[in-house]
Amino acid sequence: MKYPETPAVLVKNKHFKLADVSTKDKGVFGETYAHKESAQPRLAALRQRLVELQENLYAEHQRSLLLVFQAMDTGGKDGAIGNLLTGVNPAGVQVASFKAPSAAELAHDFLWRIHLKAPSRGHIGVFNRSHYEDVLVTRVHELIDKKTAHQRFDDINNFEQLLTRSGTRILKFFLHISKEEQAERLQDRLDEPAKRWKFEPGDLKERARWDDYQDVYSDALAHCSTDDAPWFVVPADHKWTRDLAIAEIVVATLEDMNPQPPKADFDLKAQVIK
Amino acid sequence: MKYPETPAVLVKNKHFKLADVSTKDKGVFGETYAHKESAQPRLAALRQRLVELQENLYAEHQRSLLLVFQAMDTGGKDGAIGNLLTGVNPAGVQVASFKAPSAAELAHDFLWRIHLKAPSRGHIGVFNRSHYEDVLVTRVHELIDKKTAHQRFDDINNFEQLLTRSGTRILKFFLHISKEEQAERLQDRLDEPAKRWKFEPGDLKERARWDDYQDVYSDALAHCSTDDAPWFVVPADHKWTRDLAIAEIVVATLEDMNPQPPKADFDLKAQVIK
Repeated sequence: MKYPETPAVLVKNKHFKLADVSTKDKGVFGETYAHKESAQPRLAALRQRLVELQENLYAEHQRSLLLVFQAMDTGGKDGAIGNLLTGVNPAGVQVASFKAPSAAELAHDFLWRIHLKAPSRGHIGVFNRSHYEDVLVTRVHELIDKKTAHQRFDDINNFEQLLTRSGTRILKFFLHISKEEQAERLQDRLDEPAKRWKFEPGDLKERARWDDYQDVYSDALAHCSTDDAPWFVVPADHKWTRDLAIAEIVVATLEDMNPQPPKADFDLKAQVIK
Repeated sequence: MKYPETPAVLVKNKHFKLADVSTKDKGVFGETYAHKESAQPRLAALRQRLVELQENLYAEHQRSLLLVFQAMDTGGKDGAIGNLLTGVNPAGVQVASFKAPSAAELAHDFLWRIHLKAPSRGHIGVFNRSHYEDVLVTRVHELIDKKTAHQRFDDINNFEQLLTRSGTRILKFFLHISKEEQAERLQDRLDEPAKRWKFEPGDLKERARWDDYQDVYSDALAHCSTDDAPWFVVPADHKWTRDLAIAEIVVATLEDMNPQPPKADFDLKAQVIK
């Protein structure tokens, strides 16, 4: 399908580099909207449309939509997911957050725990982190080498193809922030008592490997963005353009899926309620 | 805890009968609110407070809240769940709908598939139908006898006690409608094309066993309403009093739990962001 024009960049080739995408780009939104507030009506309309489309997806009960979110720490995954889906009936949404794998999960292949959380028919599934962690953090920390990572890219593409063939539409979003923006957001978490629980000292160790992460992310996005399961790099220093870009792409995709409540498969006139 | 006064009836004794509870009672709401519209500000305030409490529950990440919904067909489970939770971040809510068990599920004890869907720490879990189906539909259709049903009541109480001891607060709601109200709602589903997909001819066969269902429901509620996992019978012919009663009870329970974001367990001054 043709996706709507947003600041998000659809990854299309094997030589893709994150460094080539601005984290602050407002793209077409900068021309359309004078400022954040003037974009609010559009975002509200998209969220309302999302509610309707989700209801039809649920009623149809044949297909599902999977949204994968990845980002560096403080990249805004929680915020983006909340801002997109708050207002949608939680009965139609399945959010899975993937943390460090448990011993039982490590005793299986890396896609095993992911497969268990694939969205069921009629639902919007959300992955807050995902199977991609297994070609990112593992690689930065040299738990796997490049050859293994590239084998896993194949495994991932095959797995996502399986889901697609079984009726799951897939969209993947990398929320792209700058290292300076991350510094501000981490400092915020330290400074504001209400946000402090989100801070972990270990985050600073990962931050020190910023460039390594950008490299392995670039490699993963370049090799695992397919027509059926595309990666979008969403400039995410500005939260409002981030949220609007995601909403535009998700709603356009659901419009393209065009879910419909099923027709009655029984004889209407024969139904007599006593 | 002491629950707020609402038209919902807390089941307290072993001789409880559904027939003794009105399906139309507005209770204290009838005195407080002149009509449906005048109750809207209160409902909106409760929903807003629910959003805040859920955020704290999620941040605390120690306990969970499980809401169990049961009703006769058209009783309003989907509507009540949607009206309570739409607006809460779906990342903090886990909704499980239990249909007829699969072959794999039937190959285990009746609580096995339920246990898999118990809410994880920090989440509000919702059961749309539940383990109670296994002492209701199975009993009406004589797949189990009374002795087995009563053994299962013990199993259920023990299971719910396990969850409670592990940090899960439990509230159970039976949405109580009259047989006449069900007739109207079924007819609505037939008459309105947009609702027709919700109708199944098999619903009429179950409707014919109305009195049997009321009996086995009465028995189950009477034996499985405990201090830790109470059953509330919610008059549900009026949707607004139903939704308001549930919201009052859920919010009061979360207030009683009083979840708090965790304090930082690291040396704040030692954190330097480079």
